[in-house]
Amino acid sequence: MKVSGTRFRTIWLKGDDPGVVQVIDQRKLPHAFKVLELRTVEDCRAAIQDMTVRGAGLIGATAGYGMYIAALTSPEKGTRAFIEKAAEILVATRPTAANLAWAVNRQLAAIRACPTREESVKAALSTAAAIADEDAESCRRIGGHGKEIIIEMARKKRGGTIHILTHCNAGWLAFVDYGSATAPIYAAFDAGVAVHVWVDETRPRNQGASLTAWELGQHGVPHDLITDNAGGHLMQHGLVDLVLTGADRVTRNGDAANKIGTYLKAAAAKDNGIPFYVALPSSSFDFGRVDGVKNIPIEERDSGEVRFVAGKTADGKIETVQICPDTTPARNWGFDVTPARLITRLICERGVCEASEAGILGLFPEEKT
Amino acid sequence: MKVSGTRFRTIWLKGDDPGVVQVIDQRKLPHAFKVLELRTVEDCRAAIQDMTVRGAGLIGATAGYGMYIAALTSPEKGTRAFIEKAAEILVATRPTAANLAWAVNRQLAAIRACPTREESVKAALSTAAAIADEDAESCRRIGGHGKEIIIEMARKKRGGTIHILTHCNAGWLAFVDYGSATAPIYAAFDAGVAVHVWVDETRPRNQGASLTAWELGQHGVPHDLITDNAGGHLMQHGLVDLVLTGADRVTRNGDAANKIGTYLKAAAAKDNGIPFYVALPSSSFDFGRVDGVKNIPIEERDSGEVRFVAGKTADGKIETVQICPDTTPARNWGFDVTPARLITRLICERGVCEASEAGILGLFPEEKT
Repeated sequence: MKVSGTRFRTIWLKGDDPGVVQVIDQRKLPHAFKVLELRTVEDCRAAIQDMTVRGAGLIGATAGYGMYIAALTSPEKGTRAFIEKAAEILVATRPTAANLAWAVNRQLAAIRACPTREESVKAALSTAAAIADEDAESCRRIGGHGKEIIIEMARKKRGGTIHILTHCNAGWLAFVDYGSATAPIYAAFDAGVAVHVWVDETRPRNQGASLTAWELGQHGVPHDLITDNAGGHLMQHGLVDLVLTGADRVTRNGDAANKIGTYLKAAAAKDNGIPFYVALPSSSFDFGRVDGVKNIPIEERDSGEVRFVAGKTADGKIETVQICPDTTPARNWGFDVTPARLITRLICERGVCEASEAGILGLFPEEKT
Repeated sequence: MKVSGTRFRTIWLKGDDPGVVQVIDQRKLPHAFKVLELRTVEDCRAAIQDMTVRGAGLIGATAGYGMYIAALTSPEKGTRAFIEKAAEILVATRPTAANLAWAVNRQLAAIRACPTREESVKAALSTAAAIADEDAESCRRIGGHGKEIIIEMARKKRGGTIHILTHCNAGWLAFVDYGSATAPIYAAFDAGVAVHVWVDETRPRNQGASLTAWELGQHGVPHDLITDNAGGHLMQHGLVDLVLTGADRVTRNGDAANKIGTYLKAAAAKDNGIPFYVALPSSSFDFGRVDGVKNIPIEERDSGEVRFVAGKTADGKIETVQICPDTTPARNWGFDVTPARLITRLICERGVCEASEAGILGLFPEEKT
């Protein structure tokens, strides 16, 4: 996607130095656009853990490049042990996103098949690039499938604007390109459909306010920022035509873990008969798990994210402010799980399916046991 | 209730000057405790409009004292016109809370019955005091009725802690004393029941983080601050025993307007079979209206409340930070309406009833037509 007119992905190899991975520092957005360099496994670990990079697809792609960096920086003696240790370190950073372990395991399989260190490095590089390219291509295809849904809605609405509510950032910043939830929006917008996006701010880290609003603004898509509290009111008053979110992990039966608060929107959408779609690349599926509410691990993060809010002051400084009394305790779960019964359809790169085991396996027959 | 051990109400007449109304400046909480003086109708209007005072009951009580100030500061000639104009000004400040028009109309009736300016002032003073006293007494009684519900839950849980989720501030700061949603919590806590409160931060103005957390902390009630997004996850995992909120207006059939986001919690509570109670004094009923989603006017406030967050910096200054790009537009509705079908029971000063016309009129037979 474009930033001030220049084409960017969220992660790439530095042109003149294949030992350096570059990423957009998403902690600085929307107030500054900075590119950060990752040169070591520790750089990659930190970038995922401190949310310099975040979002299901980009976490996977960063882990993929992290494994390449591991191979590249591994010692001549003990190469394999170094790489296996790096895999452990990377997988431990964030528990909820399925793409993380998926990317690391794919790299481990590729690397383990190589007899020499040199071949390992080569295989790890091509696998990292493949993970990133496939992520972008999957999102592009999600956009194609999802666009049809929006076009059909616009047809039924006789050309009236389609109002789409989204939560958090499942935009191109959360992937390598295009995004999952935003891909259909960009595709429909580019095709000339009148769309308007309600952007949930998405406390505690405000990825909606800081990333989705920024992305949509850069691309020129009409949107309004709202608090996470507002969506139900909008739905009750006919101001939402569809809800479209991403997912960090979807179980075999269609339960979807996504940013905390997604489930509240799904429950309200159900209460108002509004379609609720979840867009995801196949790398976000966890085919080995059912009953997401019970079985998907939910990350609990630092309570400071709830007690403090960061932003830009009137004189342009980045400042953090405390919104509660000094002694107030807080809790901070990063994700919740939307049960399959509340999801109208899943949108994947292979097509659109019911959020059910039968629906999912219809698109992924190779996962049938 | 107590502030650092000293007993306070949220509004009172200055002891040595009956021409001055004093209120706690709630815009400064939790970072500073300041008392503000209101001496003119304009002071009262501004205090309601800029949310120096807020909350259903306190808006009503402030409007009541505002009408007294109007009578007191009215000219010898044109007394009545001055007072009627003040009534208009005060009613126009906030459209959603029922208590506002209720208090002003009660004052108008009292004042219109007086033949002289002097008697008008006297009647307005005693009516303002009565409105405030009745508000406090209603909340105290709500506490008594609601306490029984919590005690019964604790009995069924065999003494296990009762986890209560609340939204916004329907605490003593929103009334003259005790609060509506918090009154049962304080009463149960004081009676030795193990309670714990999940405090929704309540964006955009964070009344949960800044006021409810402060109140509960002052009284020693165990609580944790959470984002508005977290409640659904907690409910899915058995961590909420009941949801208890206030209301700014409840229709004849039991639909409840309350702070934006309340409806999302009600929909999730329904989805999880968790009881959802709404506590309110009778002054918050709008017996003349049905179908709250359609017919309760919902205030739309300045979009800056969404785009900016205020709080305390590390060096103790109050600062406002922008959380989105410079050009991002935002929308900001202040309330939403929870349909009666999602409300387990209403708790009023007269008792506990179904959220239905039959249930409500069972407690308020004088409103039968």
